[in-house]
Amino acid sequence: MTDAELENEPAPTAAILVIGSEILSGNTQDANIHFIAKRLVQRGVRLQEVRIVPDVAEEIIGAVNALRKKYTYVFSTGGIGPTHDDITSDCMAKAFGVDHMVAPEAKKRLEDYYKNSGTEVNEARLRMATLPAGSVLIDNPVSAAPGFQVGNVFVMAGVPKIMQAMFNHVETMIEGGPQLFSLTIECNQKEGDIGDELGKIQKNFPDIEIGSYPHMYQTPSLSIVVRGTDDDMVHNAAAKVKELLRKMGEQPFI
Amino acid sequence: MTDAELENEPAPTAAILVIGSEILSGNTQDANIHFIAKRLVQRGVRLQEVRIVPDVAEEIIGAVNALRKKYTYVFSTGGIGPTHDDITSDCMAKAFGVDHMVAPEAKKRLEDYYKNSGTEVNEARLRMATLPAGSVLIDNPVSAAPGFQVGNVFVMAGVPKIMQAMFNHVETMIEGGPQLFSLTIECNQKEGDIGDELGKIQKNFPDIEIGSYPHMYQTPSLSIVVRGTDDDMVHNAAAKVKELLRKMGEQPFI
Repeated sequence: MTDAELENEPAPTAAILVIGSEILSGNTQDANIHFIAKRLVQRGVRLQEVRIVPDVAEEIIGAVNALRKKYTYVFSTGGIGPTHDDITSDCMAKAFGVDHMVAPEAKKRLEDYYKNSGTEVNEARLRMATLPAGSVLIDNPVSAAPGFQVGNVFVMAGVPKIMQAMFNHVETMIEGGPQLFSLTIECNQKEGDIGDELGKIQKNFPDIEIGSYPHMYQTPSLSIVVRGTDDDMVHNAAAKVKELLRKMGEQPFI
Repeated sequence: MTDAELENEPAPTAAILVIGSEILSGNTQDANIHFIAKRLVQRGVRLQEVRIVPDVAEEIIGAVNALRKKYTYVFSTGGIGPTHDDITSDCMAKAFGVDHMVAPEAKKRLEDYYKNSGTEVNEARLRMATLPAGSVLIDNPVSAAPGFQVGNVFVMAGVPKIMQAMFNHVETMIEGGPQLFSLTIECNQKEGDIGDELGKIQKNFPDIEIGSYPHMYQTPSLSIVVRGTDDDMVHNAAAKVKELLRKMGEQPFI
């Protein structure tokens, strides 16, 4: 494709599917969504939705099927360990309507990894090598048991250190999109004072997204974030926001 | 209802809907999901799903309508401020098919609050008093602009301090359910060593949920969480887990 065609390509979109009853029950706080969100922005992939579902087969299958049809990529975390509550892999096979079987390469990686420590590849551990047919392995440099790609779904561990290591490999497996440029303007205005005028600037820049995020009991008390794929236009819109803030007696900073 | 009938009542279920492009773009890390999850457990309400959607009307409306039909309660956070990107209230009216109009009591609260500081209730601030017809106000002791309940949906601010203050009121507006008991057993087993036997214990306690959550590079390295509505049965299942751990040479602690 030419550069011009590339620019007109719609950006790839994505959803994150967090599989974890422990997060819904308040036992654990998710640490993966924010990590993946930041990395996707850097790759020009637009994260459009996140869902957190419990370790319940029909909920996982329903969410996977809804998300994989709607977005370019789905990134799931959680539920691929060796215990009875790790049902993600089986659910992915069911969602895609493919067999769920031992993947020889995945089994070999586990055997090689455990050989050194004299650990046995028992039935529980073999669960981690049982994958949807046709899966492509995602490397796990931390603890060997691989993640996997099936269709447009990338299935990763829930433990943040392992997920992050897997994501390094996942990044090489996906196509990025046009870079999203973003400028954050910090100020001490109240949203209610600035809202009407800010809305007018937004109307004048329909291809730019202007967001306004207040912080209680903090200085600066308001972040105005200007985002878009056209760097010049992001700067122009941000200049208008700064002009407005100066009119209101502030020296805004970026 | 008698105690026996109450015990047989299914527990109320819930979903959280986080409305915020700033979270999907990685600019902000959500701080509300974990807070609400923990508080719902204490009230005996079962959190079944979380969705994060952008500030896009059709996505918000679609998610609200999907979630409110599936769960007893929906708790939304974000998008109820005075700026152009705050479209939650309008979307809730559209989702429920009701008018979106100035609520006199909400307007009065804003006027009273701003009177003291000589702040003007301009068009931007009046957005915060424009609510779906028939809404019940949720108190905002921090910054006056109320949240609101429409149908089974409770609409709160995204700023954590304000959301938390609003949630104190929301708790008085919902029915709780049977308390969920939970015991966490910490140990240093590998999931792969314990998985097969743990699965057998799970099979013997079908009404109890046994979850296994590894922690990398930490001691203890594995949390086994036993949950259920029958306190005695939770203790019995936990006793079996501890017995298993002792057999493996560990002194587990709760």
